[in-house]
Amino acid sequence: MKRPFISLTSDFGVGTQGIGIMRAVALEICPEASVIDLRHGIPEFDITEGAWTMEAVPQLPVGAHVCVVDPGVGTMRRSIIIKTRRGDFLIGPDNGVLIPATRRLGGIEKAVEITNGKYMRKPVSPVFHGRDVFTPAAAHLSNGVPIDEFGPEMKPEKLAQAPYEEAAVAKGVVTGKIIHVNHFGSVSINAMKEDFAKSGIKYRDSILIDARSNKISSKLLKTFGEVAKGEVVAFADDYGRIEVAINQGRFSDTFGVKLGDRIIIRK
Amino acid sequence: MKRPFISLTSDFGVGTQGIGIMRAVALEICPEASVIDLRHGIPEFDITEGAWTMEAVPQLPVGAHVCVVDPGVGTMRRSIIIKTRRGDFLIGPDNGVLIPATRRLGGIEKAVEITNGKYMRKPVSPVFHGRDVFTPAAAHLSNGVPIDEFGPEMKPEKLAQAPYEEAAVAKGVVTGKIIHVNHFGSVSINAMKEDFAKSGIKYRDSILIDARSNKISSKLLKTFGEVAKGEVVAFADDYGRIEVAINQGRFSDTFGVKLGDRIIIRK
Amino acid sequence: MKRPFISLTSDFGVGTQGIGIMRAVALEICPEASVIDLRHGIPEFDITEGAWTMEAVPQLPVGAHVCVVDPGVGTMRRSIIIKTRRGDFLIGPDNGVLIPATRRLGGIEKAVEITNGKYMRKPVSPVFHGRDVFTPAAAHLSNGVPIDEFGPEMKPEKLAQAPYEEAAVAKGVVTGKIIHVNHFGSVSINAMKEDFAKSGIKYRDSILIDARSNKISSKLLKTFGEVAKGEVVAFADDYGRIEVAINQGRFSDTFGVKLGDRIIIRK
Repeated sequence: MKRPFISLTSDFGVGTQGIGIMRAVALEICPEASVIDLRHGIPEFDITEGAWTMEAVPQLPVGAHVCVVDPGVGTMRRSIIIKTRRGDFLIGPDNGVLIPATRRLGGIEKAVEITNGKYMRKPVSPVFHGRDVFTPAAAHLSNGVPIDEFGPEMKPEKLAQAPYEEAAVAKGVVTGKIIHVNHFGSVSINAMKEDFAKSGIKYRDSILIDARSNKISSKLLKTFGEVAKGEVVAFADDYGRIEVAINQGRFSDTFGVKLGDRIIIRK
Repeated sequence: MKRPFISLTSDFGVGTQGIGIMRAVALEICPEASVIDLRHGIPEFDITEGAWTMEAVPQLPVGAHVCVVDPGVGTMRRSIIIKTRRGDFLIGPDNGVLIPATRRLGGIEKAVEITNGKYMRKPVSPVFHGRDVFTPAAAHLSNGVPIDEFGPEMKPEKLAQAPYEEAAVAKGVVTGKIIHVNHFGSVSINAMKEDFAKSGIKYRDSILIDARSNKISSKLLKTFGEVAKGEVVAFADDYGRIEVAINQGRFSDTFGVKLGDRIIIRK
Repeated sequence: MKRPFISLTSDFGVGTQGIGIMRAVALEICPEASVIDLRHGIPEFDITEGAWTMEAVPQLPVGAHVCVVDPGVGTMRRSIIIKTRRGDFLIGPDNGVLIPATRRLGGIEKAVEITNGKYMRKPVSPVFHGRDVFTPAAAHLSNGVPIDEFGPEMKPEKLAQAPYEEAAVAKGVVTGKIIHVNHFGSVSINAMKEDFAKSGIKYRDSILIDARSNKISSKLLKTFGEVAKGEVVAFADDYGRIEVAINQGRFSDTFGVKLGDRIIIRK
């Protein structure tokens, strides 16, 4: 029999005990689960970075995936479970952090608000829903409790909006924004490799990148190693997003761009 | 059958291999255990922070819980196992780091010194008892080896003292000290929510906080969100300790207080 | 039945999702494995530090051990599996990072290049072989797939060289170099305790350490606690390597030595 799979993601510091407590809560409720940390140490309250991180869920087995990036904890924001068409459960606050991942998991099959106290750890802390609401929900779902047991259904259009939409794709033009800057100073944008195919920009095409009033000549290639040192290149990153980088350089610093900036790429 | 539960806590850096080696030692001796990291990266040799961290054990399943914060390793300090009334085994150095957690786990049922070489990993390093003494003991206990097999019983009063006692509680006054400062600059003190109830200070009462010759007016509430930005508030933290904070501010910096400082709270 | 054992080591930051994805890939292919992180957060592309870290594998159970320190990913460097005489599989890039560990695991029994796409995760990223090549290989080996299935055998002498050789041992003289500097500023050298025995330098002998034109009088002892504060001492570290330290001081800063420096120790 397959072991249920639970992943945990949060903006807790990697050297803090909240992470260990969530692992323990998961294993106490569902001892047979494989519980893995997808990522912790996300910059605090950074919903964009949290949503970008959760886009890695398609690379994990189908399972219950918890995300605790939750600036609104203690307010009236809802706690939710989203069932994806791939079969996953995404569990976290209703602040948009779970939405971009659903686009990569076949879309939303059903969403419910978590209101049933039966599946919460007691007493429920006003500020630690990761321990008391989200992780217990993931573990009970892994034990086979039906999603409808947790609370009332929510229409997908009532869910809080994602921190970013997908890039606008037109003939020969992709208009996106920066959703991640990695530690090399390379940037990922809210467009998939497939978006470029749709816009008619193909592998090896020359492109013009428009960012912060810079017009940058580049090419769409497979990896940064295909251009000379110091040259700009666009390619699909390991998670399917288009990344713009300078080979052995820092794109973000060189062109003064940052998270959230608009980037237009044309053929 | 329930899987045995082992937690590991240490002051090793989160990017160091000693942690991975302890996990492996635990799993080699007791392959069926759920082994989780409660916390690593505790400030080096900081027994107060270690003891405060171990106060999270009541939130974990009953099991064997190792704590390696051990400035005295290589000296004559003893290695110990404490059995709690809840049924846990706490394993670590006899330097007080395990004591505060026992107060939250029903008290000490029995303590033994670890002297039986049969349950140590050989050769025993003079400086890595986490790997060679504490973790093997946790794993053998998880396999059902009786605590008396590990060495002679110690009377609880012979154990090294805790790094902090519980706050003194009188009518309308709680006299405590700061045992934790979190990364928001909020402080936790050595008093539980229940201590306030005992002293007659109730939820929503106005209080006067005396710290480093500051007299600070505040209230006992449920969470920091209940006061305006910049105001001081006292509430129970996620681990049951009373926390004093400034909503969206840094209490520790504002009032110049630090770990170990005395705090008096009166009605 | 024994659970297969898989360890993961990398130069990925401890707060990045690549680590979690590798854990998930391992568990998806081999759900019964015990998957532990030996160490992450190795300084990026540092093959010496990676090789030194993998020397901890003898302290882990026999299993499949992945190391992703891979500055050459995306180039023509080979992916390899090394079977050790102890029975482990070491999996990673052919850049020498796996070689020092083999010396402590009985030597190399067989090496193969990983070329069989059947055991890779698809599509294979040009820059994330940890996820797509190495971890899948570890998990399939744990499932019992024979090493010869993965690709053609390589003669050990064709493998890329180790980042460091073992120290030269002569009568009364060990000529080595620094392969690790710890966060206390103590240094480990490429000599084992046994090398000192071979050269005739015994426990408690006075020694002369020659490093960066300093001539330092010291002793070979069991631990740094055996000398007075501020004195230099040599002893076997927790991994069997000879470490040179100043009790409560920083050897590396005091004498201006760094990774890769030559150290000569004579009786």
